[in-house]
Amino acid sequence: MSTPELSVNRSALPLVKKLCNNAEMYCVDVKKTEQGTTLIDAGIKSKGGFLAGQIITEICLGGFGSAEIFHKRYGDIEVPSVSVYTDHPAVATLGSQFGGWQINLEDFGAIGSGPARALALKPKEIYAKIDYKDKADVTTLVLETNKEPPESVITHIYSQCNVTPDNLFLILTPTTTVTGSTQISGRIVETGIHKLTRLGLDPKSIMHAWGYAPIAPVHPKFAKAMGRTNDAILYAGVAYYTVHYDDEKLNKLVSKASSSTSKNYGKPFFEIFKGVDYDFRRIDPDLFAPAVLIINNATTGNTFKAGQINLEVFRQSVGL
Amino acid sequence: MSTPELSVNRSALPLVKKLCNNAEMYCVDVKKTEQGTTLIDAGIKSKGGFLAGQIITEICLGGFGSAEIFHKRYGDIEVPSVSVYTDHPAVATLGSQFGGWQINLEDFGAIGSGPARALALKPKEIYAKIDYKDKADVTTLVLETNKEPPESVITHIYSQCNVTPDNLFLILTPTTTVTGSTQISGRIVETGIHKLTRLGLDPKSIMHAWGYAPIAPVHPKFAKAMGRTNDAILYAGVAYYTVHYDDEKLNKLVSKASSSTSKNYGKPFFEIFKGVDYDFRRIDPDLFAPAVLIINNATTGNTFKAGQINLEVFRQSVGL
Amino acid sequence: MSTPELSVNRSALPLVKKLCNNAEMYCVDVKKTEQGTTLIDAGIKSKGGFLAGQIITEICLGGFGSAEIFHKRYGDIEVPSVSVYTDHPAVATLGSQFGGWQINLEDFGAIGSGPARALALKPKEIYAKIDYKDKADVTTLVLETNKEPPESVITHIYSQCNVTPDNLFLILTPTTTVTGSTQISGRIVETGIHKLTRLGLDPKSIMHAWGYAPIAPVHPKFAKAMGRTNDAILYAGVAYYTVHYDDEKLNKLVSKASSSTSKNYGKPFFEIFKGVDYDFRRIDPDLFAPAVLIINNATTGNTFKAGQINLEVFRQSVGL
Repeated sequence: MSTPELSVNRSALPLVKKLCNNAEMYCVDVKKTEQGTTLIDAGIKSKGGFLAGQIITEICLGGFGSAEIFHKRYGDIEVPSVSVYTDHPAVATLGSQFGGWQINLEDFGAIGSGPARALALKPKEIYAKIDYKDKADVTTLVLETNKEPPESVITHIYSQCNVTPDNLFLILTPTTTVTGSTQISGRIVETGIHKLTRLGLDPKSIMHAWGYAPIAPVHPKFAKAMGRTNDAILYAGVAYYTVHYDDEKLNKLVSKASSSTSKNYGKPFFEIFKGVDYDFRRIDPDLFAPAVLIINNATTGNTFKAGQINLEVFRQSVGL
Repeated sequence: MSTPELSVNRSALPLVKKLCNNAEMYCVDVKKTEQGTTLIDAGIKSKGGFLAGQIITEICLGGFGSAEIFHKRYGDIEVPSVSVYTDHPAVATLGSQFGGWQINLEDFGAIGSGPARALALKPKEIYAKIDYKDKADVTTLVLETNKEPPESVITHIYSQCNVTPDNLFLILTPTTTVTGSTQISGRIVETGIHKLTRLGLDPKSIMHAWGYAPIAPVHPKFAKAMGRTNDAILYAGVAYYTVHYDDEKLNKLVSKASSSTSKNYGKPFFEIFKGVDYDFRRIDPDLFAPAVLIINNATTGNTFKAGQINLEVFRQSVGL
Repeated sequence: MSTPELSVNRSALPLVKKLCNNAEMYCVDVKKTEQGTTLIDAGIKSKGGFLAGQIITEICLGGFGSAEIFHKRYGDIEVPSVSVYTDHPAVATLGSQFGGWQINLEDFGAIGSGPARALALKPKEIYAKIDYKDKADVTTLVLETNKEPPESVITHIYSQCNVTPDNLFLILTPTTTVTGSTQISGRIVETGIHKLTRLGLDPKSIMHAWGYAPIAPVHPKFAKAMGRTNDAILYAGVAYYTVHYDDEKLNKLVSKASSSTSKNYGKPFFEIFKGVDYDFRRIDPDLFAPAVLIINNATTGNTFKAGQINLEVFRQSVGL
């Protein structure tokens, strides 16, 4: 009963195999490429769903977090929601779940997230910050896309991860599906950690994390779907952290951490996006944060809070 | 990793075995008849409970859905609730969970539900509508009853299912128990699909379904217990669907879908039942629907909503 | 498929092994003493967390109950919460989870809870009342402590349980950690049963139990942490029972069952504790009860309710 080194890829693998071995239940299509890479289509030609979205969230967390579909009433709005918790916040979110691997090759573009990032070290700065890298010889990457990646992209991925092609699992989830909507809302805890880290908090000081967000009703158009899924986090998501920190510094950090501190705050994401001519780089990065953050300082016992659920904007966004 | 054909009976079987192998935990009594059929008493002489109610709900869904006991506050009422979700709505609910097999033989009468219906095709029209039948050689039927079925009923069931007697599992759940109360509230999603289908919606257009209802406090008298468990769905149950449909048609359908559209709506079910001299056929079939339905059209991104939680009637019904 | 005798120790064992075999995931340290006893440090040198708190709750319930981390909003307070249910209320709570084994040996003092009590019969009166004892040859005790027990304490424990040292598992959880906070709130259902039993209710008449309480934000000082974790139950915890009883007697019992019936009620526990010079024996035992109790009498169908969530005191206690 020794303590092995934390491997997000090894820990995620049983979940990936569960997904493949119960493809019918999860409504996913599983196939092998000629090189032996496993492609798991979770919403392109297949249907995907809540179950797929839930397990893909847990895979994204490198097997070191728990995701659950549950009920929450937001004012008079009833939508299924997803809650997430992890006792390995830095590694499971920044080190795995964060959408930090932007793939643009030939005419294929997709955001990559999940444990494979911890082999390819995408991006390096984050892994330096959390002082972590994985050494597994098998790996899984989640691609937010509605297209199957061409062979060249697959080759690029397993080369960057330094694994053989047959040891690569690729999960494909379109933003416009329930799978996509679920696994994006499942990033609530990660979104908060990313914002806090950007503000200067040492992510390794976060001991435990929990959060939830509504699962946005789906929309067939990508930009609208992306808008809704972002709004689920920005206007209705709640994240809760236990940290070891200095109260004064924490108080300052928290006051800047919620989405409401952004100059773009207050409109559905799609409107913001349209307002900057669909140019992602012109969106204020401060926007990307949970609606509400609550941080319990284990060092002092004090708790700090920022932000509010903004039902009006969420309602506008999803048309409820 | 081929995609096998969907078998509600084969998928439910591991759950049935889990129930049998952990009989003590689930507070059920398991025995074999002389012919080898397995009888699982979940509340007659045994006690049953929340755990049994939860797994029986999942068995009823043919193993293609998830049920969870959770907390929900209804105004000032605190009762345990059950939530359900499935990515196989038509097959798991109409094709399995729906109480569509009325058994009346000798002096034994009970509603049968669960995967066995997909072998016996009860009723045929539903299976034609969802274009589904199962071919398993092992099967499970859930009987809402407080009596053990006589040998002749058992023979009738396995004959209709075309399985050998030792390949039949019968689960017995009285309406007056926590098991019964739980597994009936677990029918929230199915109740909505049944109503929508009766109104003309093609059930195969429903891609994902989720819902919840309170678990009604138990009552020792059957008619009162049936009233309460129905009221949990009719006055406090919420169902949410993702469909592919035409907006205009959907809007019309949804407006007629909630229980509140029934002329019988507004009184506890027991009062309605008494008012028609306990003659089920005189109850308006429009009544059998969730209190609230929300339908997200994946084709257009629009969402339609009908109904309200009616706390006053639910409170009256359960005496809270 | 016979019905084996209920063994809280045997039923808890697979959970204990799961905890040990996934030490990294649960953030616990596992080691063996020279005599072969397994020590599971869940928050002293290790970090522990929500996951550890959840499984330790289920271990405390002797494997005969279910614990889940979930979301609940209390007024404008968002904190993770834990819900618990069991269909074996008397045995799982009084017979196992209750903190009834006070260990004071040399300079080591800790409250012991969990299945080992059912071997050592601590205290005897409770086991007489529920007519239960376990006969397993392997056992688990949960100690609320921030110190590793000395060898003499370990010897005392396995001797009292009449097992060999290598068949003893000790789980150590400090009150000041998320593990501690979670597993204490996980005692919500037990707290209500203990109070009702003290008031004269026969615990064997309780058939099913369910409840939830917020997980208090942690505090580094023991007395404050103990205060908060108590307040989570006393001022914000809800317990729900199904019993077989006489309505009149039940009505009387319930009216005395909530924490609000105590003369100490109305202040954070830490204030009460300070007010009696930190002398536990001077605290009114009536205080130890859920904020809200709801009891459904399966004999009559009537339901009785007492108490209210007291957000103001809970907020004061946890500083939110």
